[in-house]
Amino acid sequence: MSVKEDILKIAQAARQASLGVARLGTGVKNKALIKMAEGLEANAPFLKEENRKDTEAAEKKGLTKAMIDRLTLTDKVISTMANGLREVVALPDPVGEVTKMWKRPNNLMVGKMRIPIGVIGIIYESRPNVTADAAGLCLKSGNAVILRGGSEAIHSNTAIAKVLNDACVEAGVPANAIQVIPTVEREAVQEMLKLEDYIDLIIPRGGEGLIRFVVENSKIPVIKHYKGVCHVFVDESADTEMAERICFNSKVQRPGVCNAMETLLVHKNIADEFLPGMYKKYKEAGVELRGCERTRKVLPDIKAAIEEDWSAEYLDLVLAVKVVDTLDEAIDHIAKYGSLHTESIITKDYANSQRFIREVNSSTVLVNASTRFSDGFQLGLGAEIGISTTKIHAFGPMGLEELTTQKFIIFGEGQVRE
Amino acid sequence: MSVKEDILKIAQAARQASLGVARLGTGVKNKALIKMAEGLEANAPFLKEENRKDTEAAEKKGLTKAMIDRLTLTDKVISTMANGLREVVALPDPVGEVTKMWKRPNNLMVGKMRIPIGVIGIIYESRPNVTADAAGLCLKSGNAVILRGGSEAIHSNTAIAKVLNDACVEAGVPANAIQVIPTVEREAVQEMLKLEDYIDLIIPRGGEGLIRFVVENSKIPVIKHYKGVCHVFVDESADTEMAERICFNSKVQRPGVCNAMETLLVHKNIADEFLPGMYKKYKEAGVELRGCERTRKVLPDIKAAIEEDWSAEYLDLVLAVKVVDTLDEAIDHIAKYGSLHTESIITKDYANSQRFIREVNSSTVLVNASTRFSDGFQLGLGAEIGISTTKIHAFGPMGLEELTTQKFIIFGEGQVRE
Repeated sequence: MSVKEDILKIAQAARQASLGVARLGTGVKNKALIKMAEGLEANAPFLKEENRKDTEAAEKKGLTKAMIDRLTLTDKVISTMANGLREVVALPDPVGEVTKMWKRPNNLMVGKMRIPIGVIGIIYESRPNVTADAAGLCLKSGNAVILRGGSEAIHSNTAIAKVLNDACVEAGVPANAIQVIPTVEREAVQEMLKLEDYIDLIIPRGGEGLIRFVVENSKIPVIKHYKGVCHVFVDESADTEMAERICFNSKVQRPGVCNAMETLLVHKNIADEFLPGMYKKYKEAGVELRGCERTRKVLPDIKAAIEEDWSAEYLDLVLAVKVVDTLDEAIDHIAKYGSLHTESIITKDYANSQRFIREVNSSTVLVNASTRFSDGFQLGLGAEIGISTTKIHAFGPMGLEELTTQKFIIFGEGQVRE
Repeated sequence: MSVKEDILKIAQAARQASLGVARLGTGVKNKALIKMAEGLEANAPFLKEENRKDTEAAEKKGLTKAMIDRLTLTDKVISTMANGLREVVALPDPVGEVTKMWKRPNNLMVGKMRIPIGVIGIIYESRPNVTADAAGLCLKSGNAVILRGGSEAIHSNTAIAKVLNDACVEAGVPANAIQVIPTVEREAVQEMLKLEDYIDLIIPRGGEGLIRFVVENSKIPVIKHYKGVCHVFVDESADTEMAERICFNSKVQRPGVCNAMETLLVHKNIADEFLPGMYKKYKEAGVELRGCERTRKVLPDIKAAIEEDWSAEYLDLVLAVKVVDTLDEAIDHIAKYGSLHTESIITKDYANSQRFIREVNSSTVLVNASTRFSDGFQLGLGAEIGISTTKIHAFGPMGLEELTTQKFIIFGEGQVRE
């Protein structure tokens, strides 16, 4: 069979499975998740053996040690995957939730009920643990899933999916609820992205290149997340001690992730008081600052920022710093250069806190807290399938609820239209 | 300037306007809607004059009388458009609504707040009244809008948009909140569909051909609605008088619309009792039935249905009829042949009503009511920008709420990540 036929067959099987998965009770789904966790642990030798094929190939190809580390399945990684699935058991089942209901003048009762989206396609780069995480979240939200991992992890992903699927079927989940694309050919992704009749949503997880490729080639809606250029704005009324703590945490705690701060905006009236102490802390942590002219009047040592710095996602210990005249200038700067990801204001002023919350339309907007909280676990979603920085369907961290949609349900007593 | 440059300029202006429109208070938006309504009425002579250019061109091109009627702006059509805008004034402003809020163990207060989507592109066929309807809904929901109507209505649409925009600016709405693509060239649409950095969502309104063209060519998310193959299932326990009333209304009240019934499913145990009387009523109304074999055992006069009838959207006084053995068979038939639009069950059985509501995942699912209620006004949304039969972002009739998305808002007191 050709790749095209293979992918079509997988997608059709997923659509068929999705009808059954959508109707599963919470009990069956939870039982399956527990069996999936047990299956991963019980099959650790098999998973590591299959994984070794991938890591040996990676070594031959000369991949970096960091990349091979990310690819490697150890007992610890396997048990983390298993525990991730067990945590999903504890999350509330979103399917069937009636989010509102109202009565019409003709006595029709009209409501909205959460239902699964149907078939979700996940396209991701090499970490094999995504296979288990994504499969667990899709199952609990009543969706069938088609997984396409990086070619480096093909043996690992296929093995993980096999173990998960066996556990599912044992628990009473329809076959093919969880499938992995079993080929490394890039054509497979292109074919997958054409099948709008069988796949409802594509979630790419990886670098900007992968996401752009998916968007360019997909006829299926895509949840996008190009980058995170997150801002903290230190308002003139900020508590400087709190501002230092939050700005430090937002930049330094884990600089390589999308919810780390990349640009610091400082109100002119607090710049002299705040910047020198902050600079000292950053310097000790090895953070390189790049400042606007006014920042450099306070901190003459630091490099000058150029235009590109204002939209840079460094993902590193580098930070752009700009002094602004007003809250409005901060909000406008964020609208112009930001990526709609996460922004925080540090302030003691009530009115400014409310304006920032209302007028900054990024996916997560905070007052007096670190940008690092922009994360499904931290916000209390329980788990995260990804983050959306486009406003369609979901915006921000996506948990189980965001893997559902809502239908209208109507209870009548014989009403017809006049 | 080339078409490409023109469209880019329009889209950039819309993005710029959207930042201001998103921040408008409800008062300004309502004032603008009232002024828009007044403006349409005050400028009726100008609108009719511009409209005449379109209708004369249409006559020369030999368009049908029905098409020219749909295109013509009379005082009555203009006042209907104006009153539509006044009705939007009365609808609640969705922007800023906090739909939920919860406390995290670290005392962070996390909530979700409705915000506008940003820039909406509407691509529609010739009725010029869509121009005012869509502009009003987009404005009230805080979005900028780019309208691209049918080429036959270019003068009418441009004139309506000019009147609406003047009224908006007078009320304090940023310029370019409402724009019409001022050219009839098809290239304009293709260019528009590429501008994912400036346009957030495309809503095509028209026939399947238009919608498929948009989906094929768009890099921007599209709200889709290909067709409505709606079902009514008459359960064995149905009240036959109620079933007749609803089945008649669903098919006959307005057969040419997407929420009219196209296939009638009848439980085998009620077929003998229900079908003959129903057939009589349909016959009187001029409805042609096409039945499965078992239907034709009860109604030997009618035509045999062929496979294509089960997925046909007749939009006419034609109806496919099938006798089924069980509720499950009805649900499976709907899943196989339906278009995810609207389905209704007629039943006196509590358990079956609940199963149908839960297991049929079309965008609107009814018990004991006509499919014709699947409509924004009828469901109480107040107005409708369109209907979605794909599950991403919105599913079913879309009102003001569906023109928004939700951001996370977080109130802290200095929290950082450990």
